[in-house]
Amino acid sequence: MTFAATVLTLYPEMFPGPLGISLAGRALEAGLWSLDTVQIRDFAEDKHRTVDETPAGGGAGMVMRADVLARAVDSVTAEVPMLAMTPRGKPLKQERVRELAAGPGVAVLCGRFEGFDERIFEGREIEEVSIGDYVLSGGEMGALVLLDACIRLVPGVMGAASSGVEESFETGLLEYPQYTRPQTWEGRTIPEVLRSGDHAKIAAWRNARAAEDTRLRRPDLWERHEGARAVSPSGAQRKD
Amino acid sequence: MTFAATVLTLYPEMFPGPLGISLAGRALEAGLWSLDTVQIRDFAEDKHRTVDETPAGGGAGMVMRADVLARAVDSVTAEVPMLAMTPRGKPLKQERVRELAAGPGVAVLCGRFEGFDERIFEGREIEEVSIGDYVLSGGEMGALVLLDACIRLVPGVMGAASSGVEESFETGLLEYPQYTRPQTWEGRTIPEVLRSGDHAKIAAWRNARAAEDTRLRRPDLWERHEGARAVSPSGAQRKD
Repeated sequence: MTFAATVLTLYPEMFPGPLGISLAGRALEAGLWSLDTVQIRDFAEDKHRTVDETPAGGGAGMVMRADVLARAVDSVTAEVPMLAMTPRGKPLKQERVRELAAGPGVAVLCGRFEGFDERIFEGREIEEVSIGDYVLSGGEMGALVLLDACIRLVPGVMGAASSGVEESFETGLLEYPQYTRPQTWEGRTIPEVLRSGDHAKIAAWRNARAAEDTRLRRPDLWERHEGARAVSPSGAQRKD
Repeated sequence: MTFAATVLTLYPEMFPGPLGISLAGRALEAGLWSLDTVQIRDFAEDKHRTVDETPAGGGAGMVMRADVLARAVDSVTAEVPMLAMTPRGKPLKQERVRELAAGPGVAVLCGRFEGFDERIFEGREIEEVSIGDYVLSGGEMGALVLLDACIRLVPGVMGAASSGVEESFETGLLEYPQYTRPQTWEGRTIPEVLRSGDHAKIAAWRNARAAEDTRLRRPDLWERHEGARAVSPSGAQRKD
């Protein structure tokens, strides 16, 4: 089975781009995922192939037309979730990435300019997704990020040894810090415990560091993690 | 003045990639920003050009060596902030993007495998940055995102008309929904107020929608926004 990616964009030449190199690139060549691009402009109906118009009510920039977008969206026949990259969307999390990667694929609608005519989200089933609280020149970078995150989890892409289960966010925490040779670098040595060979002690140290770093660096993640822990599967509150 | 971007990576061929197209691509050609890549592998010292080793304490994957990274970092002579893309980093926000874009440029250290030997962050001044709570195959996608976000704000890249001040996150809120022609699409009409020509009413409607959508879609942003509003510039608490 292949993970089928379709990207709807005004810049099909951006794809596969960096996804054609390294891990994702080898997987593409190996047929572990496939890539289709749809040029949104092909669904314009005037001779100028207009996809955008000035915003209703005034303001800077241009807005992508709902009718053109809808025709482009309707052209996708693959039975995969349709996502749109937009700063108004739901923040992308590893959990959603893992769900998507386990499915048949994804279609990604990339906006440019000031964004999409809002009615497209009323008229079609599209999941609005944001990769972060910053503004990009278009949805294409977001699509590259989303696809990269998914593709590495597609079965066969990474070796079994690095299945990603011990990674940041998979446990709701940041990953513990890593060290490697040389033993001493500029006077700094690898923490003693990691050289002990005592697997239980190493695991305990890593868990403690993951917790401590998350608490200090990402109080938001830490709070969510502790909140989830406080509720047992039976719904009863944990006693501290 | 040019925005000088330097990317330290094992995959220099990924750059400029999508940044060579459209807005960022035209700006690169126009000399509004510049791009240097540093091949980290060039700073290995053995004949196999080894950049990574197995993790101290065991575990899957490989960790990038601090000594090799340090030599690569030290080779950058530009007086710009050095950022490393890592899920353990501080979440990238539009505010930091704006600061970086107003500066002389940025250097971006891209990791692969299981990440960096932690000591590099003790031995060198490097800002750890995360573009979101998901895991990518490497830092390169993050670097593309970071640079795209910065470049569009570099003076001269966007027209003055779309300076980005009315965008999502710039006010701490999501952007209001946009509409454009056609007036009616599949029975859905553009909200009446946007066709009124009454600029004050339009602005009020947009502010209300930005607030409402943020509250419903992003309670986290809304809370921060309300928290900031609750403290006046004099430091006094607002009375509700």
